[in-house]
Amino acid sequence: MNRQWLYARQPRGKIGPDTFQWTETAIPAPRDGEVLVRTRMLSLDPANRAWMMGKTYRDALEPGQVMSGFAIGEVVQSKAGGLEPGDIVEGDWGWQDYAALPARRLTKRTTRAPLEHLVGPLSITGLTAYFGLLEVGQPKPGDTVLVSAAAGAVGTMVGQIARLAGCRVVGTAGGQDKCDWLVRELGFDAAVDYKAGGVRRALAAVCPGGVDVYFDNTGGPVLEAALSLMKLRGRIVCCGNVSQYDVEKPAPGPMAVPGLVVTKRLRMEGFVVMDFFDQREPAEARLAQWVADGRIKAIVDIVDGLEKAPQALIDLFEGRNRGKRAVRVS
Amino acid sequence: MNRQWLYARQPRGKIGPDTFQWTETAIPAPRDGEVLVRTRMLSLDPANRAWMMGKTYRDALEPGQVMSGFAIGEVVQSKAGGLEPGDIVEGDWGWQDYAALPARRLTKRTTRAPLEHLVGPLSITGLTAYFGLLEVGQPKPGDTVLVSAAAGAVGTMVGQIARLAGCRVVGTAGGQDKCDWLVRELGFDAAVDYKAGGVRRALAAVCPGGVDVYFDNTGGPVLEAALSLMKLRGRIVCCGNVSQYDVEKPAPGPMAVPGLVVTKRLRMEGFVVMDFFDQREPAEARLAQWVADGRIKAIVDIVDGLEKAPQALIDLFEGRNRGKRAVRVS
Repeated sequence: MNRQWLYARQPRGKIGPDTFQWTETAIPAPRDGEVLVRTRMLSLDPANRAWMMGKTYRDALEPGQVMSGFAIGEVVQSKAGGLEPGDIVEGDWGWQDYAALPARRLTKRTTRAPLEHLVGPLSITGLTAYFGLLEVGQPKPGDTVLVSAAAGAVGTMVGQIARLAGCRVVGTAGGQDKCDWLVRELGFDAAVDYKAGGVRRALAAVCPGGVDVYFDNTGGPVLEAALSLMKLRGRIVCCGNVSQYDVEKPAPGPMAVPGLVVTKRLRMEGFVVMDFFDQREPAEARLAQWVADGRIKAIVDIVDGLEKAPQALIDLFEGRNRGKRAVRVS
Repeated sequence: MNRQWLYARQPRGKIGPDTFQWTETAIPAPRDGEVLVRTRMLSLDPANRAWMMGKTYRDALEPGQVMSGFAIGEVVQSKAGGLEPGDIVEGDWGWQDYAALPARRLTKRTTRAPLEHLVGPLSITGLTAYFGLLEVGQPKPGDTVLVSAAAGAVGTMVGQIARLAGCRVVGTAGGQDKCDWLVRELGFDAAVDYKAGGVRRALAAVCPGGVDVYFDNTGGPVLEAALSLMKLRGRIVCCGNVSQYDVEKPAPGPMAVPGLVVTKRLRMEGFVVMDFFDQREPAEARLAQWVADGRIKAIVDIVDGLEKAPQALIDLFEGRNRGKRAVRVS
């Protein structure tokens, strides 16, 4: 049997169990040019939620489809050149045990590392942090780098890469426990609990010279605060807007745009990791080396069982994860 | 006598006649290293209003000071090397007939052109359009360039320079008359009256393929509309926020920030023309050649008499100008 989670209906406000629907169907047979993949790990990402609301860098999810999501799997049957049973592949085939897919929709993973690393620091999440920080943010040694959702999948990587780049690293996270953990375990210079209120003042206290690079995973109040703390010619890496994904009515945009963007000559720049995939191989090799050396800790938060995927995504928006959340399917 | 307009008090909401106070004082005597300048032209700029509200790229105006503003003048007495009586100079000495200033606070203008051109297309306004469009916006031939406040000092220049760069040019302006004039006189491909309502829809109709470069002079609803029309990897040149300068309570920021900035991989970048002053000479020479060739029309809107400066600035915020508004003082 092929167990599947369908995307059942567009949520109003927060996603809930009824956003998804469980179904079981026959295992598909691959046609010529296709392979049959067995899902090993599902990547859970805030973007999963954004896809429900409309077209982004990909088409919107439509009710009735298998819930979309990046996954890592193993080829179990191949009718396509270049892929053999046992190969580890990655793609967006969604929340199901098996999928039959054309080979061109899959990326073969050749980096030798545990699946937990392939879905964590060596995944698109790690590459998002890597390219966003280094290519878009252009930090210099000694810069102060601020990252929101710092205890999340991208944030934990941004913080660690920024530290390796010689920067002073400050994060925001929800709750003092997470903040303490960022400083103690991941080498952040400071972390601010955005839920405690007064986030602008608290960030100003730990960024007395201002912020050179702000890596924005959240939008919302932390973006507003960061804009007021940016130094002249600071760079804001627009990676995500997670504060607005799981709400019924989006908040207004930041008041400081465009005013402070002009007077401080800021650059705000959005990116999508796929734009940098021509440089994926050397970037992944570098990340893999850092993880192997212990210079970057792989922070992964694995939930066991496909049946738990909806709750695992709901919990992601409640901030119950640390680092990369993924579901082990088989 | 030295006639002066002082900045009297911070406006609440719109500026009015009582924002300024007329006074007459003695003509100052230059000290060693200083020159005495007689004002010929005052440049009126939306930034004059922004300076009243707080620190920008310069300190805030303080009540009681001579009202600040860029000016062009003639040296009438010199106690400084490098400047002679008769030299034409530029600087920020504000709304008065005379000023005694250190030579380092003045820029000698050597471009041979009428004062109307020196305060218009060959002024910081022209350079703002030039550097902002070409260096920050990076337009390519065939790109669609959208500019707000297109009938204003910067907008008329941006539109004409974009056309010379081989772009399709669309502007927004207040009123159908101005829009018709932009198309008829300045070669815009289309212009949209933002006061007529439905600005997003109207812009979508004249930018069917989307917008590559948006030169934002206004913020507000046109920025919001532009964000929704930007193409992938579009550039937004953040030059001004004039829709928010003359209001008591600024509007919320654009909802699309940071959401669309991420999904469309947009770049929003602020700049201040002074950042490019190391390249001023060749840029000014190029602009002067274009004006001399008739490839760029000098659109200047001159008001005669220092006494009329406050009303001339008030009118600027009512949109009563076309192109660069300046006050002829002597």
